[in-house]
Amino acid sequence: MTEPKNPHFEQVVSDSFAAQQLMATIGARLTRVAAGEIEIRVPFRPDLTQQHGFLHAGVVTSALDSACGYAAFSLMPEGAGVLTVEFKTNLLAPAKGEELIARGRVVRAGRTITVCQADALMLSDGVETSVATMLSTIMTVRDRPDVVR
Amino acid sequence: MTEPKNPHFEQVVSDSFAAQQLMATIGARLTRVAAGEIEIRVPFRPDLTQQHGFLHAGVVTSALDSACGYAAFSLMPEGAGVLTVEFKTNLLAPAKGEELIARGRVVRAGRTITVCQADALMLSDGVETSVATMLSTIMTVRDRPDVVR
Amino acid sequence: MTEPKNPHFEQVVSDSFAAQQLMATIGARLTRVAAGEIEIRVPFRPDLTQQHGFLHAGVVTSALDSACGYAAFSLMPEGAGVLTVEFKTNLLAPAKGEELIARGRVVRAGRTITVCQADALMLSDGVETSVATMLSTIMTVRDRPDVVR
Amino acid sequence: MTEPKNPHFEQVVSDSFAAQQLMATIGARLTRVAAGEIEIRVPFRPDLTQQHGFLHAGVVTSALDSACGYAAFSLMPEGAGVLTVEFKTNLLAPAKGEELIARGRVVRAGRTITVCQADALMLSDGVETSVATMLSTIMTVRDRPDVVR
Repeated sequence: MTEPKNPHFEQVVSDSFAAQQLMATIGARLTRVAAGEIEIRVPFRPDLTQQHGFLHAGVVTSALDSACGYAAFSLMPEGAGVLTVEFKTNLLAPAKGEELIARGRVVRAGRTITVCQADALMLSDGVETSVATMLSTIMTVRDRPDVVR
Repeated sequence: MTEPKNPHFEQVVSDSFAAQQLMATIGARLTRVAAGEIEIRVPFRPDLTQQHGFLHAGVVTSALDSACGYAAFSLMPEGAGVLTVEFKTNLLAPAKGEELIARGRVVRAGRTITVCQADALMLSDGVETSVATMLSTIMTVRDRPDVVR
Repeated sequence: MTEPKNPHFEQVVSDSFAAQQLMATIGARLTRVAAGEIEIRVPFRPDLTQQHGFLHAGVVTSALDSACGYAAFSLMPEGAGVLTVEFKTNLLAPAKGEELIARGRVVRAGRTITVCQADALMLSDGVETSVATMLSTIMTVRDRPDVVR
Repeated sequence: MTEPKNPHFEQVVSDSFAAQQLMATIGARLTRVAAGEIEIRVPFRPDLTQQHGFLHAGVVTSALDSACGYAAFSLMPEGAGVLTVEFKTNLLAPAKGEELIARGRVVRAGRTITVCQADALMLSDGVETSVATMLSTIMTVRDRPDVVR
Protein backbone atom coordinates (compact mmCIF):
# COMPACT_ATOMS: atom_id res chain seq x y z
CA MET A 1 0.00 0.00 0.00
CA THR A 2 2.85 2.37 0.75
CA GLU A 3 4.78 1.48 -2.41
CA PRO A 4 4.79 4.63 -4.56
CA LYS A 5 3.98 4.17 -8.26
CA ASN A 6 5.51 7.51 -9.19
CA PRO A 7 9.27 7.70 -8.48
CA HIS A 8 8.99 11.50 -8.45
CA PHE A 9 6.13 11.56 -5.94
CA GLU A 10 7.92 13.94 -3.56
CA GLN A 11 8.42 16.47 -6.32
CA VAL A 12 4.88 16.32 -7.72
CA VAL A 13 3.40 16.61 -4.24
CA SER A 14 5.58 19.62 -3.43
CA ASP A 15 4.79 21.26 -6.77
CA SER A 16 1.05 20.74 -6.36
CA PHE A 17 1.13 22.01 -2.77
CA ALA A 18 3.00 25.12 -3.94
CA ALA A 19 0.22 25.68 -6.49
CA GLN A 20 -2.47 25.74 -3.76
CA GLN A 21 -2.58 29.47 -3.20
CA LEU A 22 -4.76 29.02 -0.12
CA MET A 23 -1.89 27.29 1.65
CA ALA A 24 0.27 30.42 1.31
CA THR A 25 -2.66 32.61 2.35
CA ILE A 26 -3.08 30.75 5.65
CA GLY A 27 0.67 30.34 6.15
CA ALA A 28 0.67 26.55 5.75
CA ARG A 29 3.94 24.68 5.19
CA LEU A 30 4.44 21.16 3.85
CA THR A 31 6.68 19.68 6.54
CA ARG A 32 6.73 15.99 5.62
CA VAL A 33 6.23 14.04 2.39
CA ALA A 34 6.44 10.26 2.51
CA ALA A 35 4.73 7.56 0.48
CA GLY A 36 1.15 7.67 1.76
CA GLU A 37 1.92 10.11 4.59
CA ILE A 38 1.87 13.93 4.69
CA GLU A 39 2.35 16.55 7.39
CA ILE A 40 1.28 20.17 7.07
CA ARG A 41 1.79 22.88 9.70
CA VAL A 42 -0.07 26.16 10.13
CA PRO A 43 1.15 28.65 12.74
CA PHE A 44 -1.67 30.20 14.77
CA ARG A 45 -2.78 33.61 13.53
CA PRO A 46 -5.64 35.72 14.90
CA ASP A 47 -6.95 36.38 11.39
CA LEU A 48 -7.74 32.64 11.01
CA THR A 49 -9.98 32.38 14.06
CA GLN A 50 -13.66 31.87 14.79
CA GLN A 51 -15.64 33.84 17.34
CA HIS A 52 -14.06 32.25 20.45
CA GLY A 53 -10.52 32.98 19.28
CA PHE A 54 -9.69 29.40 18.24
CA LEU A 55 -8.63 28.43 14.70
CA HIS A 56 -11.78 28.19 12.56
CA ALA A 57 -12.90 24.65 11.71
CA GLY A 58 -12.53 25.63 8.07
CA VAL A 59 -8.82 26.33 8.53
CA VAL A 60 -8.32 23.05 10.37
CA THR A 61 -10.21 21.32 7.57
CA SER A 62 -8.14 23.07 4.89
CA ALA A 63 -4.96 21.61 6.38
CA LEU A 64 -6.52 18.17 6.97
CA ASP A 65 -7.96 18.01 3.45
CA SER A 66 -4.66 18.95 1.83
CA ALA A 67 -2.85 16.43 4.06
CA CYS A 68 -5.26 13.68 2.99
CA GLY A 69 -5.25 14.69 -0.65
CA TYR A 70 -1.46 14.69 -0.89
CA ALA A 71 -1.15 11.44 1.07
CA ALA A 72 -3.37 9.91 -1.61
CA PHE A 73 -1.59 11.75 -4.44
CA SER A 74 1.81 10.45 -3.28
CA LEU A 75 0.68 6.92 -4.18
CA MET A 76 -0.90 7.74 -7.54
CA PRO A 77 0.71 6.95 -10.89
CA GLU A 78 2.51 9.62 -12.90
CA GLY A 79 0.18 11.96 -14.76
CA ALA A 80 -2.80 11.36 -12.48
CA GLY A 81 -4.84 14.16 -10.98
CA VAL A 82 -6.25 14.21 -7.46
CA LEU A 83 -9.75 15.30 -6.42
CA THR A 84 -11.42 15.19 -3.01
CA VAL A 85 -14.78 13.42 -3.21
CA GLU A 86 -15.83 14.08 0.37
CA PHE A 87 -14.59 14.32 3.94
CA LYS A 88 -15.92 14.26 7.47
CA THR A 89 -14.25 16.21 10.26
CA ASN A 90 -14.88 15.63 13.95
CA LEU A 91 -13.75 18.49 16.16
CA LEU A 92 -12.33 17.17 19.42
CA ALA A 93 -11.08 20.24 21.30
CA PRO A 94 -10.61 23.98 20.78
CA ALA A 95 -7.82 24.67 18.26
CA LYS A 96 -5.73 26.98 20.41
CA GLY A 97 -1.97 27.04 20.77
CA GLU A 98 1.03 28.03 18.69
CA GLU A 99 0.83 25.78 15.67
CA LEU A 100 -1.62 23.42 13.97
CA ILE A 101 -0.15 20.11 12.81
CA ALA A 102 -2.18 18.08 10.30
CA ARG A 103 -1.01 14.53 9.64
CA GLY A 104 -2.70 12.55 6.86
CA ARG A 105 -2.21 8.95 5.81
CA VAL A 106 -3.69 6.54 3.31
CA VAL A 107 -5.97 3.89 4.79
CA ARG A 108 -6.62 2.12 1.51
CA ALA A 109 -5.47 3.00 -1.99
CA GLY A 110 -7.65 1.61 -4.76
CA ARG A 111 -7.48 2.13 -8.49
CA THR A 112 -10.09 4.90 -8.46
CA ILE A 113 -10.90 5.55 -4.79
CA THR A 114 -8.42 6.19 -1.98
CA VAL A 115 -9.59 6.43 1.63
CA CYS A 116 -7.52 8.59 3.95
CA GLN A 117 -7.46 9.47 7.61
CA ALA A 118 -5.90 12.55 9.19
CA ASP A 119 -5.39 13.96 12.65
CA ALA A 120 -5.04 17.61 13.62
CA LEU A 121 -3.09 18.57 16.72
CA MET A 122 -2.24 21.89 18.29
CA LEU A 123 1.25 22.40 19.57
CA SER A 124 1.30 24.51 22.73
CA ASP A 125 4.35 24.86 24.98
CA GLY A 126 5.82 21.74 23.40
CA VAL A 127 2.72 19.61 24.04
CA GLU A 128 0.59 18.23 21.20
CA THR A 129 -3.18 18.08 21.80
CA SER A 130 -5.60 16.37 19.41
CA VAL A 131 -8.11 18.90 18.12
CA ALA A 132 -9.74 17.18 15.13
CA THR A 133 -9.84 14.01 13.06
CA MET A 134 -10.85 13.50 9.44
CA LEU A 135 -11.97 10.50 7.39
CA SER A 136 -11.99 11.27 3.68
CA THR A 137 -12.46 9.89 0.18
CA ILE A 138 -10.11 10.90 -2.61
CA MET A 139 -10.36 10.12 -6.31
CA THR A 140 -7.63 9.37 -8.85
CA VAL A 141 -8.46 11.27 -12.03
CA ARG A 142 -7.16 10.19 -15.41
CA ASP A 143 -7.55 11.75 -18.83
CA ARG A 144 -8.91 15.08 -17.64
CA PRO A 145 -6.69 17.89 -18.92
CA ASP A 146 -8.01 20.34 -16.27
CA VAL A 147 -7.04 18.01 -13.41
CA VAL A 148 -3.45 16.94 -13.91
CA ARG A 149 -2.05 17.21 -10.40
CA MET B 1 -38.56 24.35 14.68
CA THR B 2 -38.15 27.76 13.10
CA GLU B 3 -39.50 29.65 16.11
CA PRO B 4 -36.56 31.61 17.54
CA LYS B 5 -36.10 31.48 21.33
CA ASN B 6 -33.93 34.57 21.34
CA PRO B 7 -35.75 37.71 20.15
CA HIS B 8 -32.37 39.28 19.36
CA PHE B 9 -31.19 36.36 17.25
CA GLU B 10 -30.35 38.52 14.23
CA GLN B 11 -28.11 40.74 16.32
CA VAL B 12 -26.28 37.94 18.15
CA VAL B 13 -25.69 36.08 14.87
CA SER B 14 -24.33 39.23 13.21
CA ASP B 15 -22.13 40.03 16.19
CA SER B 16 -20.72 36.52 16.36
CA PHE B 17 -20.10 36.43 12.60
CA ALA B 18 -18.26 39.76 12.87
CA ALA B 19 -16.06 38.19 15.55
CA GLN B 20 -14.98 35.36 13.23
CA GLN B 21 -11.80 36.93 11.92
CA LEU B 22 -11.45 34.20 9.28
CA MET B 23 -14.61 35.47 7.58
CA ALA B 24 -12.99 38.87 7.00
CA THR B 25 -9.75 37.20 5.88
CA ILE B 26 -11.53 35.27 3.12
CA GLY B 27 -13.84 38.17 2.27
CA ALA B 28 -17.03 36.44 3.44
CA ARG B 29 -20.21 38.45 3.98
CA LEU B 30 -23.30 37.47 5.95
CA THR B 31 -26.04 38.10 3.38
CA ARG B 32 -29.10 36.58 5.05
CA VAL B 33 -30.10 35.88 8.64
CA ALA B 34 -33.46 34.25 9.28
CA ALA B 35 -34.64 31.91 12.02
CA GLY B 36 -32.90 28.64 11.18
CA GLU B 37 -31.54 29.87 7.84
CA ILE B 38 -28.29 31.63 6.97
CA GLU B 39 -26.62 32.73 3.73
CA ILE B 40 -22.94 33.62 3.43
CA ARG B 41 -21.21 34.81 0.23
CA VAL B 42 -17.51 34.69 -0.63
CA PRO B 43 -16.33 36.38 -3.84
CA PHE B 44 -13.81 34.30 -5.78
CA ARG B 45 -10.20 35.24 -5.15
CA PRO B 46 -7.12 33.53 -6.59
CA ASP B 47 -5.46 33.45 -3.16
CA LEU B 48 -8.19 31.08 -1.91
CA THR B 49 -7.65 28.41 -4.56
CA GLN B 50 -6.30 24.89 -4.72
CA GLN B 51 -3.92 23.58 -7.38
CA HIS B 52 -6.46 23.52 -10.24
CA GLY B 53 -7.49 27.13 -9.69
CA PHE B 54 -10.84 26.35 -8.03
CA LEU B 55 -11.77 27.53 -4.52
CA HIS B 56 -10.12 25.17 -2.02
CA ALA B 57 -12.48 22.71 -0.31
CA GLY B 58 -11.39 24.25 2.97
CA VAL B 59 -12.72 27.65 1.92
CA VAL B 60 -16.00 26.13 0.76
CA THR B 61 -16.19 24.28 4.07
CA SER B 62 -15.42 27.43 6.07
CA ALA B 63 -18.45 29.12 4.54
CA LEU B 64 -20.66 26.03 4.87
CA ASP B 65 -19.65 25.47 8.50
CA SER B 66 -20.33 29.08 9.47
CA ALA B 67 -23.67 28.95 7.61
CA CYS B 68 -24.66 25.78 9.52
CA GLY B 69 -23.37 27.05 12.84
CA TYR B 70 -25.27 30.33 12.61
CA ALA B 71 -28.43 28.64 11.34
CA ALA B 72 -28.28 26.55 14.54
CA PHE B 73 -27.28 29.55 16.69
CA SER B 74 -30.25 31.58 15.42
CA LEU B 75 -32.59 29.12 17.17
CA MET B 76 -30.67 28.87 20.44
CA PRO B 77 -31.76 30.57 23.67
CA GLU B 78 -30.14 33.80 24.84
CA GLY B 79 -26.75 33.32 26.46
CA ALA B 80 -26.01 30.01 24.72
CA GLY B 81 -22.77 29.29 22.93
CA VAL B 82 -22.44 27.39 19.66
CA LEU B 83 -19.86 24.71 18.84
CA THR B 84 -19.52 22.52 15.77
CA VAL B 85 -19.29 18.84 16.73
CA GLU B 86 -18.62 17.51 13.23
CA PHE B 87 -19.50 17.94 9.59
CA LYS B 88 -19.29 16.04 6.31
CA THR B 89 -18.82 17.82 3.01
CA ASN B 90 -19.44 16.23 -0.39
CA LEU B 91 -17.83 18.09 -3.26
CA LEU B 92 -20.07 18.00 -6.33
CA ALA B 93 -18.32 20.14 -8.94
CA PRO B 94 -15.32 22.46 -9.27
CA ALA B 95 -15.83 25.69 -7.30
CA LYS B 96 -15.18 28.11 -10.12
CA GLY B 97 -17.08 31.28 -10.92
CA GLU B 98 -17.50 34.75 -9.47
CA GLU B 99 -18.96 34.13 -6.04
CA LEU B 100 -19.53 31.28 -3.61
CA ILE B 101 -22.96 31.19 -1.97
CA ALA B 102 -23.36 29.00 1.13
CA ARG B 103 -26.89 28.43 2.38
CA GLY B 104 -27.39 26.65 5.68
CA ARG B 105 -30.58 25.55 7.39
CA VAL B 106 -31.59 23.65 10.50
CA VAL B 107 -32.86 20.12 9.89
CA ARG B 108 -33.65 19.42 13.52
CA ALA B 109 -33.04 21.54 16.59
CA GLY B 110 -32.81 19.59 19.84
CA ARG B 111 -31.99 20.76 23.34
CA THR B 112 -28.30 19.86 23.03
CA ILE B 113 -27.78 18.71 19.43
CA THR B 114 -28.85 20.55 16.28
CA VAL B 115 -28.49 18.92 12.86
CA CYS B 116 -27.97 21.24 9.92
CA GLN B 117 -27.70 20.95 6.17
CA ALA B 118 -26.04 23.40 3.81
CA ASP B 119 -25.52 23.79 0.09
CA ALA B 120 -22.71 25.63 -1.65
CA LEU B 121 -23.24 27.12 -5.10
CA MET B 122 -21.03 29.11 -7.42
CA LEU B 123 -22.53 32.06 -9.18
CA SER B 124 -21.14 32.46 -12.69
CA ASP B 125 -22.64 34.75 -15.32
CA GLY B 126 -25.88 34.86 -13.32
CA VAL B 127 -26.19 31.06 -13.13
CA GLU B 128 -25.94 29.15 -9.83
CA THR B 129 -24.23 25.74 -9.92
CA SER B 130 -24.17 23.36 -6.95
CA VAL B 131 -20.58 22.70 -5.92
CA ALA B 132 -20.86 21.11 -2.47
CA THR B 133 -23.27 19.94 0.20
CA MET B 134 -22.75 19.60 3.95
CA LEU B 135 -24.49 17.63 6.71
CA SER B 136 -23.39 18.75 10.16
CA THR B 137 -23.91 18.41 13.89
CA ILE B 138 -23.89 21.50 16.11
CA MET B 139 -23.98 21.70 19.89
CA THR B 140 -25.70 24.18 22.18
CA VAL B 141 -23.28 25.05 24.96
CA ARG B 142 -24.46 26.33 28.33
CA ASP B 143 -22.49 27.45 31.36
CA ARG B 144 -19.11 27.64 29.66
CA PRO B 145 -17.68 31.13 30.08
CA ASP B 146 -15.26 30.64 27.15
CA VAL B 147 -18.08 29.76 24.72
CA VAL B 148 -20.77 32.42 25.01
CA ARG B 149 -21.66 33.02 21.40
CA MET C 1 -30.10 14.50 -14.04
CA THR C 2 -33.30 12.50 -13.70
CA GLU C 3 -33.18 11.21 -17.27
CA PRO C 4 -32.58 7.46 -17.03
CA LYS C 5 -29.92 6.00 -19.34
CA ASN C 6 -31.28 2.48 -18.97
CA PRO C 7 -34.84 2.08 -20.33
CA HIS C 8 -35.24 -1.00 -18.13
CA PHE C 9 -34.15 0.76 -14.95
CA GLU C 10 -37.26 -0.22 -13.00
CA GLN C 11 -36.67 -3.89 -13.77
CA VAL C 12 -32.95 -3.92 -12.95
CA VAL C 13 -33.55 -2.06 -9.70
CA SER C 14 -36.29 -4.49 -8.69
CA ASP C 15 -34.18 -7.50 -9.64
CA SER C 16 -31.17 -6.25 -7.71
CA PHE C 17 -33.28 -5.39 -4.67
CA ALA C 18 -34.77 -8.89 -4.75
CA ALA C 19 -31.21 -10.27 -4.72
CA GLN C 20 -30.37 -8.41 -1.49
CA GLN C 21 -31.17 -11.18 0.94
CA LEU C 22 -30.86 -8.80 3.90
CA MET C 23 -33.91 -6.90 2.66
CA ALA C 24 -36.06 -10.04 3.00
CA THR C 25 -34.48 -10.80 6.38
CA ILE C 26 -35.54 -7.44 7.82
CA GLY C 27 -38.89 -7.46 6.00
CA ALA C 28 -38.05 -4.53 3.71
CA ARG C 29 -40.20 -3.82 0.65
CA LEU C 30 -39.35 -1.69 -2.38
CA THR C 31 -42.37 0.60 -2.53
CA ARG C 32 -41.33 3.15 -5.15
CA VAL C 33 -38.92 3.12 -8.09
CA ALA C 34 -38.55 6.30 -10.15
CA ALA C 35 -35.61 7.75 -12.06
CA GLY C 36 -33.30 8.95 -9.30
CA GLU C 37 -35.80 8.28 -6.49
CA ILE C 38 -36.43 5.20 -4.37
CA GLU C 39 -38.66 4.38 -1.41
CA ILE C 40 -38.19 1.36 0.86
CA ARG C 41 -40.42 0.45 3.80
CA VAL C 42 -39.62 -1.73 6.81
CA PRO C 43 -42.41 -2.60 9.26
CA PHE C 44 -41.33 -2.34 12.89
CA ARG C 45 -40.33 -5.65 14.45
CA PRO C 46 -38.97 -6.18 17.98
CA ASP C 47 -36.18 -8.40 16.65
CA LEU C 48 -34.71 -5.39 14.80
CA THR C 49 -34.35 -3.16 17.88
CA GLN C 50 -31.55 -1.73 19.99
CA GLN C 51 -31.53 -1.68 23.79
CA HIS C 52 -34.21 1.03 24.19
CA GLY C 53 -36.70 -0.78 21.98
CA PHE C 54 -36.25 1.49 18.93
CA LEU C 55 -35.17 0.24 15.51
CA HIS C 56 -31.36 -0.19 15.57
CA ALA C 57 -29.40 2.49 13.68
CA GLY C 58 -27.99 -0.36 11.58
CA VAL C 59 -31.48 -1.29 10.35
CA VAL C 60 -32.32 2.33 9.58
CA THR C 61 -28.99 2.59 7.75
CA SER C 62 -29.63 -0.63 5.80
CA ALA C 63 -32.83 0.84 4.40
CA LEU C 64 -31.25 4.27 3.76
CA ASP C 65 -28.20 2.76 2.04
CA SER C 66 -30.31 0.57 -0.23
CA ALA C 67 -32.56 3.54 -1.02
CA CYS C 68 -29.52 5.67 -1.96
CA GLY C 69 -27.82 2.88 -3.87
CA TYR C 70 -30.88 2.12 -5.98
CA ALA C 71 -31.63 5.82 -6.56
CA ALA C 72 -28.11 6.02 -8.02
CA PHE C 73 -28.46 2.68 -9.86
CA SER C 74 -31.69 3.83 -11.53
CA LEU C 75 -29.71 6.46 -13.44
CA MET C 76 -26.78 4.24 -14.43
CA PRO C 77 -26.29 2.83 -17.93
CA GLU C 78 -27.20 -0.76 -18.78
CA GLY C 79 -24.65 -3.30 -17.59
CA ALA C 80 -23.22 -1.09 -14.84
CA GLY C 81 -22.74 -2.28 -11.27
CA VAL C 82 -23.39 -0.21 -8.17
CA LEU C 83 -21.16 0.03 -5.07
CA THR C 84 -21.49 2.21 -2.00
CA VAL C 85 -18.26 4.14 -1.34
CA GLU C 86 -19.34 5.68 1.97
CA PHE C 87 -22.27 7.17 3.83
CA LYS C 88 -22.97 9.33 6.86
CA THR C 89 -26.14 8.94 8.90
CA ASN C 90 -27.42 11.50 11.40
CA LEU C 91 -29.99 10.12 13.83
CA LEU C 92 -32.65 12.72 14.57
CA ALA C 93 -35.18 10.97 16.82
CA PRO C 94 -35.93 7.50 18.22
CA ALA C 95 -37.08 5.12 15.47
CA LYS C 96 -40.31 4.01 17.08
CA GLY C 97 -43.67 3.52 15.41
CA GLU C 98 -45.26 1.09 12.99
CA GLU C 99 -43.19 1.39 9.86
CA LEU C 100 -39.87 2.84 8.72
CA ILE C 101 -39.96 4.73 5.42
CA ALA C 102 -36.61 5.40 3.70
CA ARG C 103 -36.66 7.80 0.76
CA GLY C 104 -33.49 8.23 -1.30
CA ARG C 105 -32.76 10.57 -4.16
CA VAL C 106 -29.83 11.49 -6.36
CA VAL C 107 -28.24 14.86 -5.59
CA ARG C 108 -25.70 14.67 -8.42
CA ALA C 109 -25.02 11.88 -10.87
CA GLY C 110 -21.53 11.92 -12.35
CA ARG C 111 -19.82 9.47 -14.66
CA THR C 112 -18.10 7.62 -11.81
CA ILE C 113 -19.42 9.18 -8.58
CA THR C 114 -23.05 9.74 -7.65
CA VAL C 115 -23.99 11.66 -4.51
CA CYS C 116 -27.28 10.76 -2.86
CA GLN C 117 -29.37 11.99 0.03
CA ALA C 118 -31.99 10.02 1.92
CA ASP C 119 -34.45 10.61 4.74
CA ALA C 120 -35.85 8.06 7.16
CA LEU C 121 -39.25 8.58 8.74
CA MET C 122 -41.31 6.53 11.13
CA LEU C 123 -45.01 6.20 10.45
CA SER C 124 -47.02 6.13 13.66
CA ASP C 125 -50.81 6.54 13.80
CA GLY C 126 -50.74 8.04 10.33
CA VAL C 127 -48.10 10.65 11.21
CA GLU C 128 -44.60 10.65 9.68
CA THR C 129 -41.71 11.72 11.94
CA SER C 130 -38.15 12.25 10.66
CA VAL C 131 -35.79 9.89 12.44
CA ALA C 132 -32.61 9.99 10.37
CA THR C 133 -30.94 11.53 7.35
CA MET C 134 -28.12 10.17 5.16
CA LEU C 135 -25.63 11.75 2.76
CA SER C 136 -23.83 9.15 0.69
CA THR C 137 -21.39 8.51 -2.14
CA ILE C 138 -22.09 5.78 -4.69
CA MET C 139 -19.85 4.49 -7.45
CA THR C 140 -20.71 3.31 -10.96
CA VAL C 141 -18.69 0.16 -11.65
CA ARG C 142 -17.85 -0.96 -15.18
CA ASP C 143 -16.01 -4.03 -16.41
CA ARG C 144 -16.03 -5.92 -13.13
CA PRO C 145 -17.70 -9.30 -13.64
CA ASP C 146 -18.39 -9.70 -9.90
CA VAL C 147 -20.29 -6.40 -9.71
CA VAL C 148 -22.87 -6.37 -12.47
CA ARG C 149 -25.91 -4.96 -10.70
CA MET D 1 -9.33 8.55 28.79
CA THR D 2 -9.40 4.80 29.30
CA GLU D 3 -10.13 5.05 33.02
CA PRO D 4 -13.66 3.72 33.51
CA LYS D 5 -15.98 5.77 35.74
CA ASN D 6 -18.34 2.86 36.29
CA PRO D 7 -16.70 -0.09 38.11
CA HIS D 8 -19.39 -2.38 36.68
CA PHE D 9 -18.83 -1.27 33.08
CA GLU D 10 -18.32 -4.81 31.78
CA GLN D 11 -21.66 -5.91 33.22
CA VAL D 12 -23.67 -2.92 31.99
CA VAL D 13 -22.18 -3.21 28.51
CA SER D 14 -22.98 -6.93 28.36
CA ASP D 15 -26.50 -6.37 29.65
CA SER D 16 -27.19 -3.60 27.16
CA PHE D 17 -25.76 -5.63 24.27
CA ALA D 18 -27.99 -8.55 25.28
CA ALA D 19 -30.97 -6.18 25.10
CA GLN D 20 -30.20 -5.25 21.48
CA GLN D 21 -32.45 -7.78 19.81
CA LEU D 22 -30.93 -6.99 16.40
CA MET D 23 -27.60 -8.42 17.56
CA ALA D 24 -29.24 -11.83 18.15
CA THR D 25 -31.10 -11.56 14.85
CA ILE D 26 -27.87 -11.14 12.88
CA GLY D 27 -25.96 -13.62 15.04
CA ALA D 28 -23.61 -11.04 16.55
CA ARG D 29 -21.54 -11.89 19.63
CA LEU D 30 -19.79 -9.52 22.03
CA THR D 31 -16.28 -10.97 22.05
CA ARG D 32 -14.32 -8.30 23.94
CA VAL D 33 -15.21 -5.65 26.50
CA ALA D 34 -12.45 -3.39 27.79
CA ALA D 35 -12.48 0.21 28.99
CA GLY D 36 -12.97 2.19 25.79
CA GLU D 37 -12.59 -0.84 23.49
CA ILE D 38 -15.16 -3.31 22.17
CA GLU D 39 -15.08 -6.22 19.73
CA ILE D 40 -18.17 -7.73 18.09
CA ARG D 41 -18.17 -10.70 15.70
CA VAL D 42 -20.80 -11.69 13.14
CA PRO D 43 -20.43 -14.99 11.29
CA PHE D 44 -21.19 -14.72 7.58
CA ARG D 45 -24.72 -15.77 6.64
CA PRO D 46 -26.29 -15.62 3.17
CA ASP D 47 -29.44 -14.00 4.58
CA LEU D 48 -27.38 -10.91 5.56
CA THR D 49 -26.04 -10.19 2.08
CA GLN D 50 -26.50 -7.57 -0.61
CA GLN D 51 -26.92 -8.32 -4.30
CA HIS D 52 -23.31 -9.39 -4.95
CA GLY D 53 -23.31 -11.93 -2.13
CA PHE D 54 -21.24 -9.82 0.31
CA LEU D 55 -22.44 -8.77 3.76
CA HIS D 56 -24.74 -5.74 3.34
CA ALA D 57 -23.23 -2.40 4.37
CA GLY D 58 -26.11 -2.11 6.84
CA VAL D 59 -24.99 -5.27 8.64
CA VAL D 60 -21.39 -4.09 8.73
CA THR D 61 -22.63 -0.75 10.06
CA SER D 62 -24.83 -2.44 12.69
CA ALA D 63 -21.77 -4.15 14.13
CA LEU D 64 -19.57 -1.04 13.84
CA ASP D 65 -22.21 1.20 15.45
CA SER D 66 -22.72 -1.16 18.37
CA ALA D 67 -18.95 -1.49 18.78
CA CYS D 68 -18.57 2.29 18.89
CA GLY D 69 -21.60 2.82 21.12
CA TYR D 70 -20.41 0.29 23.69
CA ALA D 71 -16.82 1.54 23.57
CA ALA D 72 -18.25 4.95 24.54
CA PHE D 73 -20.70 3.45 27.06
CA SER D 74 -17.89 1.57 28.81
CA LEU D 75 -16.41 4.93 29.89
CA MET D 76 -19.68 6.57 30.96
CA PRO D 77 -20.71 7.06 34.59
CA GLU D 78 -23.20 4.74 36.27
CA GLY D 79 -26.80 5.44 35.35
CA ALA D 80 -25.98 7.14 32.04
CA GLY D 81 -27.66 6.24 28.78
CA VAL D 82 -25.95 6.03 25.40
CA LEU D 83 -27.24 7.39 22.08
CA THR D 84 -25.59 7.51 18.68
CA VAL D 85 -25.67 11.04 17.26
CA GLU D 86 -24.21 10.16 13.85
CA PHE D 87 -21.66 8.00 12.08
CA LYS D 88 -19.84 7.79 8.78
CA THR D 89 -18.82 4.47 7.27
CA ASN D 90 -16.28 4.08 4.46
CA LEU D 91 -16.46 0.73 2.70
CA LEU D 92 -12.97 -0.45 1.75
CA ALA D 93 -13.45 -3.92 0.24
CA PRO D 94 -16.20 -6.51 -0.31
CA ALA D 95 -17.31 -8.04 3.01
CA LYS D 96 -16.80 -11.68 2.07
CA GLY D 97 -15.31 -14.42 4.19
CA GLU D 98 -16.26 -16.44 7.24
CA GLU D 99 -16.70 -13.87 9.96
CA LEU D 100 -17.02 -10.12 10.37
CA ILE D 101 -14.97 -8.58 13.18
CA ALA D 102 -15.87 -5.07 14.30
CA ARG D 103 -13.45 -3.33 16.66
CA GLY D 104 -14.45 0.00 18.19
CA ARG D 105 -12.47 2.36 20.39
CA VAL D 106 -12.91 5.75 21.99
CA VAL D 107 -10.94 8.55 20.35
CA ARG D 108 -12.04 11.22 22.82
CA ALA D 109 -14.49 10.99 25.70
CA GLY D 110 -16.03 14.31 26.72
CA ARG D 111 -18.72 15.05 29.27
CA THR D 112 -21.51 15.04 26.67
CA ILE D 113 -19.90 13.99 23.38
CA THR D 114 -17.68 10.96 22.79
CA VAL D 115 -15.96 10.42 19.44
CA CYS D 116 -15.26 6.83 18.44
CA GLN D 117 -13.49 5.04 15.63
CA ALA D 118 -14.08 1.46 14.51
CA ASP D 119 -12.66 -0.93 11.95
CA ALA D 120 -14.41 -3.85 10.31
CA LEU D 121 -12.43 -6.83 9.07
CA MET D 122 -13.43 -10.09 7.42
CA LEU D 123 -11.75 -13.24 8.61
CA SER D 124 -11.17 -15.67 5.75
CA ASP D 125 -8.91 -18.73 5.99
CA GLY D 126 -7.24 -17.21 9.03
CA VAL D 127 -6.46 -13.91 7.31
CA GLU D 128 -8.06 -10.60 8.37
CA THR D 129 -8.90 -8.11 5.61
CA SER D 130 -10.09 -4.55 6.31
CA VAL D 131 -13.53 -4.04 4.79
CA ALA D 132 -14.81 -0.84 6.41
CA THR D 133 -13.98 1.96 8.81
CA MET D 134 -16.29 4.16 10.87
CA LEU D 135 -15.93 7.54 12.57
CA SER D 136 -18.81 8.27 14.91
CA THR D 137 -20.26 10.63 17.50
CA ILE D 138 -21.93 9.26 20.62
CA MET D 139 -23.83 11.14 23.31
CA THR D 140 -23.96 10.58 27.06
CA VAL D 141 -27.59 10.93 28.14
CA ARG D 142 -28.53 11.85 31.70
CA ASP D 143 -31.94 12.20 33.33
CA ARG D 144 -33.93 10.59 30.53
CA PRO D 145 -35.91 7.67 31.95
CA ASP D 146 -36.35 6.12 28.47
CA VAL D 147 -32.60 6.04 27.82
CA VAL D 148 -30.93 4.43 30.81
CA ARG D 149 -28.41 2.15 29.15
